[in-house]
Amino acid sequence: MPRYPTHNASRQRARDLGIAIGRYPTGRFNAITDVRGVHVGHTTLKRGRGDLKRGTGPVRTGVTAIVPCADDIFDNRMVGSGFVLNGAGEVLGLTQVCEWGLIESPILLTNTLSVGTVSDGAVRYLAERHPAMGVDCDVAIPLVGECDDSWLNDAAGGHIKPRHALSAIRSAATGVVPEGNVGAGTGMVTCDFAGGIGTSSRKLPRDEGGYTVGVLVLSNFGRMQDLRVNGLALGETLAGQYATHLKRFASYGSIIVVVGTDAPLLPHQVTQVCKRAALGVGRAGSSSAFESGEIVIGFSTANRVPRASKRHVVSFGSLADRAINPLYQATIEATEEAILNAICMGDTIEGHSGHVAPGLPLQVVADLVERARRAMT
Amino acid sequence: MPRYPTHNASRQRARDLGIAIGRYPTGRFNAITDVRGVHVGHTTLKRGRGDLKRGTGPVRTGVTAIVPCADDIFDNRMVGSGFVLNGAGEVLGLTQVCEWGLIESPILLTNTLSVGTVSDGAVRYLAERHPAMGVDCDVAIPLVGECDDSWLNDAAGGHIKPRHALSAIRSAATGVVPEGNVGAGTGMVTCDFAGGIGTSSRKLPRDEGGYTVGVLVLSNFGRMQDLRVNGLALGETLAGQYATHLKRFASYGSIIVVVGTDAPLLPHQVTQVCKRAALGVGRAGSSSAFESGEIVIGFSTANRVPRASKRHVVSFGSLADRAINPLYQATIEATEEAILNAICMGDTIEGHSGHVAPGLPLQVVADLVERARRAMT
Amino acid sequence: MPRYPTHNASRQRARDLGIAIGRYPTGRFNAITDVRGVHVGHTTLKRGRGDLKRGTGPVRTGVTAIVPCADDIFDNRMVGSGFVLNGAGEVLGLTQVCEWGLIESPILLTNTLSVGTVSDGAVRYLAERHPAMGVDCDVAIPLVGECDDSWLNDAAGGHIKPRHALSAIRSAATGVVPEGNVGAGTGMVTCDFAGGIGTSSRKLPRDEGGYTVGVLVLSNFGRMQDLRVNGLALGETLAGQYATHLKRFASYGSIIVVVGTDAPLLPHQVTQVCKRAALGVGRAGSSSAFESGEIVIGFSTANRVPRASKRHVVSFGSLADRAINPLYQATIEATEEAILNAICMGDTIEGHSGHVAPGLPLQVVADLVERARRAMT
Amino acid sequence: MPRYPTHNASRQRARDLGIAIGRYPTGRFNAITDVRGVHVGHTTLKRGRGDLKRGTGPVRTGVTAIVPCADDIFDNRMVGSGFVLNGAGEVLGLTQVCEWGLIESPILLTNTLSVGTVSDGAVRYLAERHPAMGVDCDVAIPLVGECDDSWLNDAAGGHIKPRHALSAIRSAATGVVPEGNVGAGTGMVTCDFAGGIGTSSRKLPRDEGGYTVGVLVLSNFGRMQDLRVNGLALGETLAGQYATHLKRFASYGSIIVVVGTDAPLLPHQVTQVCKRAALGVGRAGSSSAFESGEIVIGFSTANRVPRASKRHVVSFGSLADRAINPLYQATIEATEEAILNAICMGDTIEGHSGHVAPGLPLQVVADLVERARRAMT
Repeated sequence: MPRYPTHNASRQRARDLGIAIGRYPTGRFNAITDVRGVHVGHTTLKRGRGDLKRGTGPVRTGVTAIVPCADDIFDNRMVGSGFVLNGAGEVLGLTQVCEWGLIESPILLTNTLSVGTVSDGAVRYLAERHPAMGVDCDVAIPLVGECDDSWLNDAAGGHIKPRHALSAIRSAATGVVPEGNVGAGTGMVTCDFAGGIGTSSRKLPRDEGGYTVGVLVLSNFGRMQDLRVNGLALGETLAGQYATHLKRFASYGSIIVVVGTDAPLLPHQVTQVCKRAALGVGRAGSSSAFESGEIVIGFSTANRVPRASKRHVVSFGSLADRAINPLYQATIEATEEAILNAICMGDTIEGHSGHVAPGLPLQVVADLVERARRAMT
Repeated sequence: MPRYPTHNASRQRARDLGIAIGRYPTGRFNAITDVRGVHVGHTTLKRGRGDLKRGTGPVRTGVTAIVPCADDIFDNRMVGSGFVLNGAGEVLGLTQVCEWGLIESPILLTNTLSVGTVSDGAVRYLAERHPAMGVDCDVAIPLVGECDDSWLNDAAGGHIKPRHALSAIRSAATGVVPEGNVGAGTGMVTCDFAGGIGTSSRKLPRDEGGYTVGVLVLSNFGRMQDLRVNGLALGETLAGQYATHLKRFASYGSIIVVVGTDAPLLPHQVTQVCKRAALGVGRAGSSSAFESGEIVIGFSTANRVPRASKRHVVSFGSLADRAINPLYQATIEATEEAILNAICMGDTIEGHSGHVAPGLPLQVVADLVERARRAMT
Repeated sequence: MPRYPTHNASRQRARDLGIAIGRYPTGRFNAITDVRGVHVGHTTLKRGRGDLKRGTGPVRTGVTAIVPCADDIFDNRMVGSGFVLNGAGEVLGLTQVCEWGLIESPILLTNTLSVGTVSDGAVRYLAERHPAMGVDCDVAIPLVGECDDSWLNDAAGGHIKPRHALSAIRSAATGVVPEGNVGAGTGMVTCDFAGGIGTSSRKLPRDEGGYTVGVLVLSNFGRMQDLRVNGLALGETLAGQYATHLKRFASYGSIIVVVGTDAPLLPHQVTQVCKRAALGVGRAGSSSAFESGEIVIGFSTANRVPRASKRHVVSFGSLADRAINPLYQATIEATEEAILNAICMGDTIEGHSGHVAPGLPLQVVADLVERARRAMT
Repeated sequence: MPRYPTHNASRQRARDLGIAIGRYPTGRFNAITDVRGVHVGHTTLKRGRGDLKRGTGPVRTGVTAIVPCADDIFDNRMVGSGFVLNGAGEVLGLTQVCEWGLIESPILLTNTLSVGTVSDGAVRYLAERHPAMGVDCDVAIPLVGECDDSWLNDAAGGHIKPRHALSAIRSAATGVVPEGNVGAGTGMVTCDFAGGIGTSSRKLPRDEGGYTVGVLVLSNFGRMQDLRVNGLALGETLAGQYATHLKRFASYGSIIVVVGTDAPLLPHQVTQVCKRAALGVGRAGSSSAFESGEIVIGFSTANRVPRASKRHVVSFGSLADRAINPLYQATIEATEEAILNAICMGDTIEGHSGHVAPGLPLQVVADLVERARRAMT
């Protein structure tokens, strides 16, 4: 068993390690926040050590909020939709998004058993901002996605409270997005390595529309042997070194992918883009195992629908035919890189009962990728 | 505007009024509990009068629990699936049920803004009964469906607490099921009449398999003019009498339908049965309006899958080909009658701010149905 | 067994018998052709009598073409989508329509075993009109729906040739649409009565948008006992008179519903409208039996997308939120009435081997409906 | 522009070049025919040279038949289902397969504009073998999938006749499956390289059930830059050498994937396996472009349902929970390798008008893969 590296500040994103996925350039922050208006906030709960004592800890969990616009999304809804690659998970509220093709609440991520309290927190947030809600009968169903962090976290301990959802929403900001074991990703494990939250973006060239697409993942899927880094089956190479560790380890899976873009899309086109994000998940190594809920939710900031409008007919822009293809490609790339960022930025973490998720050995990985790159040129 | 009848004890079910839907006989209780093992429990919250004061009341809401078996459904899962006629609503957890074809928690119903707290209550219930949950990483996503009761209830007031979910589950019983404005249906309105919870069942003749199918609805859809009673457009007839009332009334809609049967079904067959329940909703008068989430969830008690089994392969029974047709017909009938029972048993109810949902005028309806029946023979 | 009425010219549409479904007025022709630009054409093959001799006859079959616009739909595509209530049938090409949200060929209907030849005919039609097809790689997948007419027709006899598809398309016209046992409906049977093709339309009032919705059905579903006329379970009443007949009769089912409207809809909204058409099928009596493929295809003439456009972004109009509700209601009504028209206009027909489908006894039905109406007022 | 290699007999499968995808061993023939009972047959049409003259040629097309069992699949149906990754294509008959969860005809593949004639051929085949079809009303909808070969083939020329479908079915055999530009794949192009038909299989170890999964693809998707060989972005490396060629080339896409297994699966599990095949398509380089219909159809030979059975209830075996995971992994691997085999075995081919699809430069690719492999160890 290797000694787990714990170089906290020294974690690097994939691209800083020289690993660039795909052919399109990234946006400024290489993050979902490169899509104008998108904000991300985290609430991270991390306390206690030792054996699991339900209700006490150790606690390794949190909430992440993606707020898709600077103005109020309840009053000014946004085109959205989703795709379920593997339904062994949940995004509360996705049914309505897919029906109406509209998102009307922030998107919240947390651990599986806290979907209820986070939803409750979001309801309080929305009800406070919108005093008319539940009076004139207009109520919202907040969006809450989840993965299971019970390998490291006292998941059934009820540590997430409604206020943690509010603080994640309120702290949401543009610019750099903290990654790795933060927010909802605090107790998450991807391909047996530490890391839950990752993000990436792509900026299309002007002659392909000049649009930006950004992806944020709550990643928790896979076994080490599944991991593919830029197509290379590095997981198998690394697994040898972690053999003893892997014997006692039992990861379970799931990934929630959030895709945002400023390209004009109709609801059914958002679904199509979400399907391509699923292909990116597959490229990163997921076989979408039985117990691994893999759900994608997407939105287009270019099409907004006011709630209070008296208009009978509204107008939508839509990428025509093949003009959507660069967006497909960019979404696959950004998804693959967001997952990679989650584990590149995830530092070795110890949870309850001595359960440990090691940090991805960055230099080893960077070297292998570089050698393969050189071999091909 | 008519004076609203308030004959509390004198409410009657459709069949007691002489209105029998369809051709198949009912089960013993004409309720979903006729399916062996199915239990139903209600928690009803009803307090306060006068204008709406968020957080205070008036309160007209509750929780209903459908427990599909006498033994533990988490340990011994049951084949299930669902169908979304109109996704403008939510059944938290349905994604996983449809993916795996298995139900592993009780089915809870409540108001829209309380899905979170009810889910939280269900999580606590499951975690308590299953100490291993969240330790060996096996966590469940409880099933929670909703309709919006904000016309009568202080919906954003946060009156439903996690304990109300537990009490509904714990009070679940076989036999007669309370209907009308009880449990989750306390503040619900169907086609402008009072009534939220209704149930009905059908028992197939022996040569068609002898199976029982039971339906329970949380009904909250439609305008009065939409109502169809045994096919008759009685809603239009009645609407004339309620014209003044209807002018100030604004119902919104949604219906959650729960279908259970002891017929052996595979997951995709449960989906098919759920689609037929949707046809029953349509026959009762719903056009599945934009804002009316109409979602069906179903289960077959005949196919169980133990959680802890070490078996590689499990065996399922399945109705062959056309043998499922009587079940389709019976499901449509039971759904239509369950909706009718909800409003037959719903007594005139006053909510906040003087909002009133009148009870269906039973004798008027019974007379009209009888006259039409006689006209046709 | 009753003597089958055969009053050829004397068949009447439901509305002419005094049976009006729903609350909205019809368009001018009470037909799908009331949607501006929609054309319908039939090729009817009817020859031979006596026992079935495969390849010889008797022949009771045909092709029906719905051409959704006056200009070329391949060059100027139209928003469309569909909904599968029961997939025990086929609309060749529907997958692509649902993916792209665009229709690019006429919609053809025929018998099950002739889907191939009709598709071949449509390919020839399209290839001839569009010499560039298959050269610059732009090929189309024609839309071909089916029901099984083998109770009356020598279905496996290969009587439909590609040219019959062409003649149906070329004869397509606006205005009155022949109904009953014509075109693809020639050998069809609905609830044990003769009749396959029916149509109806609704015109919304100006303050609800003033849109027109039209429905055309190829109807072939159900047993007599299922039939509901304006909500009345007349099928059960009539079945007594046809008891001997029904004993030897074996109908099978399926219905294809085509819905067109000039209301501006996005693809996912067309899907939603198609779902409401399915509710109309249910109201007419279908339980969507195992063997009864029930598929809806819809289009909105208000949103067109040119094929050759160089534009990166196209614009779509869309009914906002609840503004779609009148269209839902109108679609249900028109579907129910289109089915009724199919059997009202279907005259008693004898197929192979002495198989007979009686014409609906119009006067009996009209009287029963009128008596029920009076009983309710 | 490189000179196109044309070493006919010297084409090799990926594994013979030293490129082995994934971790599971292959079956005996590394083909879908490793699943006991599965037969494959090709009809290849290849004649003419020079410019395109519609109806004359050049002809580069064909039909491929996958017959899933040695006995009659119409009489003894097989559990099946499918998944549509991108619906810009067609598998005629898939709707019914997905509804019933049963396959009842051979699976045929051909070019887009010949779906009709191939379906007609299959109808004749089935009608001949089953004289009762269309007499006792039991008709089948044959399965016909397609890709567009119009870059090389006179696609609109009507060269495929019904008899070609019959000959493909009748020639179906077990054992080695011809790959590359044969059968339906004759005129197909994958990532700008020649090659349409490829196949591969995996055999699970005994402790994972010992099942076999086989995949056959009709592959026609992608641009050269998309191609990934065992995860390596070789397409980008190669594209430089073909720059001039690629400028005039316009590939379009689509892939049909057929997955068979002897593992016991319920219909919804077959859907799940088909989704994993889609992940394999993504790994091979597809971004599932707008115009690239990507459809998967699957079957489980372990669950059969006799047509004529009088039994009310039938029994199905089903892999329990996580026992399906090895099958997911194996399906991804076999799909990726089947696609690779299609282009490894596809020899440089010239179609109409000087259009050429070069054969993949095998040695170059083998060397690059080997160098990358060595770099990682």
